[in-house]
Amino acid sequence: MTAWRGADLISIRDLGREEIEKVLDRAQTIRPDSSLLRGRVMASLFFEPSTRTQLSFATAMERLGGSVIGFSGVEGTSIQKGESLYDTIKMVERYADVIVIRHPLEGSARFAADVAQIPVINAGDGANQHPSQTLLDLFTIRRFCGRLDGLSIGMVGDLKYGRTVHSLATALTHFEGVKLRLISPPLLRMPPRILEEELRGKIEFEETEELELSDLDVVYMTRIQRERFPDVEEYERVKGAYILDLEACRQLKPEAIILHPLPRVGEIDPEVDRLPQAKYFEQAASGVPVRMALLSLILLG
Amino acid sequence: MTAWRGADLISIRDLGREEIEKVLDRAQTIRPDSSLLRGRVMASLFFEPSTRTQLSFATAMERLGGSVIGFSGVEGTSIQKGESLYDTIKMVERYADVIVIRHPLEGSARFAADVAQIPVINAGDGANQHPSQTLLDLFTIRRFCGRLDGLSIGMVGDLKYGRTVHSLATALTHFEGVKLRLISPPLLRMPPRILEEELRGKIEFEETEELELSDLDVVYMTRIQRERFPDVEEYERVKGAYILDLEACRQLKPEAIILHPLPRVGEIDPEVDRLPQAKYFEQAASGVPVRMALLSLILLG
Amino acid sequence: MTAWRGADLISIRDLGREEIEKVLDRAQTIRPDSSLLRGRVMASLFFEPSTRTQLSFATAMERLGGSVIGFSGVEGTSIQKGESLYDTIKMVERYADVIVIRHPLEGSARFAADVAQIPVINAGDGANQHPSQTLLDLFTIRRFCGRLDGLSIGMVGDLKYGRTVHSLATALTHFEGVKLRLISPPLLRMPPRILEEELRGKIEFEETEELELSDLDVVYMTRIQRERFPDVEEYERVKGAYILDLEACRQLKPEAIILHPLPRVGEIDPEVDRLPQAKYFEQAASGVPVRMALLSLILLG
Repeated sequence: MTAWRGADLISIRDLGREEIEKVLDRAQTIRPDSSLLRGRVMASLFFEPSTRTQLSFATAMERLGGSVIGFSGVEGTSIQKGESLYDTIKMVERYADVIVIRHPLEGSARFAADVAQIPVINAGDGANQHPSQTLLDLFTIRRFCGRLDGLSIGMVGDLKYGRTVHSLATALTHFEGVKLRLISPPLLRMPPRILEEELRGKIEFEETEELELSDLDVVYMTRIQRERFPDVEEYERVKGAYILDLEACRQLKPEAIILHPLPRVGEIDPEVDRLPQAKYFEQAASGVPVRMALLSLILLG
Repeated sequence: MTAWRGADLISIRDLGREEIEKVLDRAQTIRPDSSLLRGRVMASLFFEPSTRTQLSFATAMERLGGSVIGFSGVEGTSIQKGESLYDTIKMVERYADVIVIRHPLEGSARFAADVAQIPVINAGDGANQHPSQTLLDLFTIRRFCGRLDGLSIGMVGDLKYGRTVHSLATALTHFEGVKLRLISPPLLRMPPRILEEELRGKIEFEETEELELSDLDVVYMTRIQRERFPDVEEYERVKGAYILDLEACRQLKPEAIILHPLPRVGEIDPEVDRLPQAKYFEQAASGVPVRMALLSLILLG
Repeated sequence: MTAWRGADLISIRDLGREEIEKVLDRAQTIRPDSSLLRGRVMASLFFEPSTRTQLSFATAMERLGGSVIGFSGVEGTSIQKGESLYDTIKMVERYADVIVIRHPLEGSARFAADVAQIPVINAGDGANQHPSQTLLDLFTIRRFCGRLDGLSIGMVGDLKYGRTVHSLATALTHFEGVKLRLISPPLLRMPPRILEEELRGKIEFEETEELELSDLDVVYMTRIQRERFPDVEEYERVKGAYILDLEACRQLKPEAIILHPLPRVGEIDPEVDRLPQAKYFEQAASGVPVRMALLSLILLG
């Protein structure tokens, strides 16, 4: 995929360095313009909740003058009457100009893209992919570190189930001299499939249990979810070891940045918010320009 | 009703041939135009779910530059606090320029229209009426068959509870030389009230249990709902007899068309989708131009 | 607060007579104008339902050409995943130009305003404040009585839990020669805190159990909620005593007006709707111009 116009965005693996940089460049320069997508309609099909993604896609579309139809949650949709995803997509492709889909099932977005005659953007299909999140992560890193090459990046917490760190690590293989430190409890290590198929030989990485942050340019925190653990005590022990508080932040370089895909539930102490390194709210904010860039590239080229 | 501007649309029975054709003609020529209804507000009051109807009305309004307010489901509305439909309408008529209402109670849309000082469009009131569905059915038939007069039309499945077939049959009485074949199990025959009051003497019709389709121009399928049957075995037996699969489609004329108001739950085998006669997704798509036509006629004349 | 641009609106107590009159004057002259707020985004964060407030804020924004993002109810939001109000606001302030928040917790709107770098409008924080409701109440009174000074105003029903009567009474202290009659059962009297801190020495008031209305210019009815009563019989007895029906309305002056924040559940007999004094639907309608005025003052000055 080199031409964006009319393209789907399903997996970050579909994008090379050039495509990624095209989105980031566009995101850097795009400004709200209520005539750009006037009359265009985005279908926002959220089969499961995601406030941040949904609101920032909607904001992006509205800031460019477009309109949004859709639903959030299947409560009150024909899916409850037993309609297939196929039929839902065949309907919506005739109402809208682009589909943004969030669905609990892995592969559902690819399926939707195969079915639809209009472009489909995957806004999360289960544990699988959420490429616009990765693009906004990269955008934020480039914005604050000034580059994507040659960075030392730590990923902390749940690296097993965390969709965002899988995609981000994969995307970083396109850049030169990046060093990854994968920091997690043994139970939540990055899956071998990712390590071997996506990273090995393409990017330098090391795995550790220690929260060693002093040489990092980027600390990417993730949420450790209770339901991943068979045992509550084990959960409490593990969770406590990967919390970023003021004490843990003392090791950070002054120019390092802290990211988190949000929502957080205790992994970052609110006191950290006032450190200059805290950039996770800026990261969330990047969702709007990055999605404006995506919508404009896909709808207009 | 000959002048559309400011008119309600509650029942297909309120429309004569001339009014119907005016909508269909408008739907055929209307194009997205983001200045046509700029500044106008449509209240979309869905007291019960209907994805397709709701999304296509919203799309129609947005494509003409208007805005949409409203709700889908009574969860989270003042109706839960005990507000009457009367009071809800008296509020909304002062916020919006047109009301689109879907309500589980028969007669509720007529009641809303009597109360409101702005136009009301019935988007389904229980088992009663859903006139914009009938208009898009007629639009689709005219589009693919080239005419509405002189057609042989089969209606298949649940003709007892199926609101869409009642309305469509009624509307077809305005056209010349139409022949209806009503194909259903005995339990789900078209109600005598419709047969005697709406059809007898106005249109040629026959009732049968046999899925005989070879001479039809239009096959209108409907969903057979499990909850209509006192007995699960009876349901399974009946359901199986009125499924359209490739085998059953062999009898179809090449120029025949298959319609279904959707969502379908097994009545049409997905393999049928690739037959040239399958037009149910085109039918769903017609919801947008037909509702654009309705909104423009009612708001602008 | 004398300059509106960029200001929050959290409590009616933050407004003096001059600020109040500025909103009412603007509301009187403002007209729909789809270019005024074009490209601006309002975040509508309803953590609990309120159809009327939500729809009228949305209508106001749309009538001025702006867009709306947000949610209604926490079902399907990241709040369910445990996200703090702080984090939600830090996200949304980067998506939108103004936040309208409804939240069940007292003080939550003030908290949101302290956190956010964009203006926040309180659309109801628990039993506490709902200032735009008070502004539309004042707008309606001034519209139909021609003034706010020198009026006799009766407040009827649940004066203990009724947030709207607390705020309205407080706001009325800015005007000259207003007389308040507080009509309620002993269990539901205006709280001493309001009486002593907000009203005593600033406005003339009397408390009574009798539905004596003959000398009033304004009768402000409220809903008596069953859940306020430990005993159902007590509830039924009390409710019956403060119902406005045709009989009770005979005492009204011809030029008096009846208001109610709605939804009503039996406190006003629907037969009263056709009396010339019934102005509660006009009051609900005022929500749109008053909120258009607020949004234009806060976003544009």
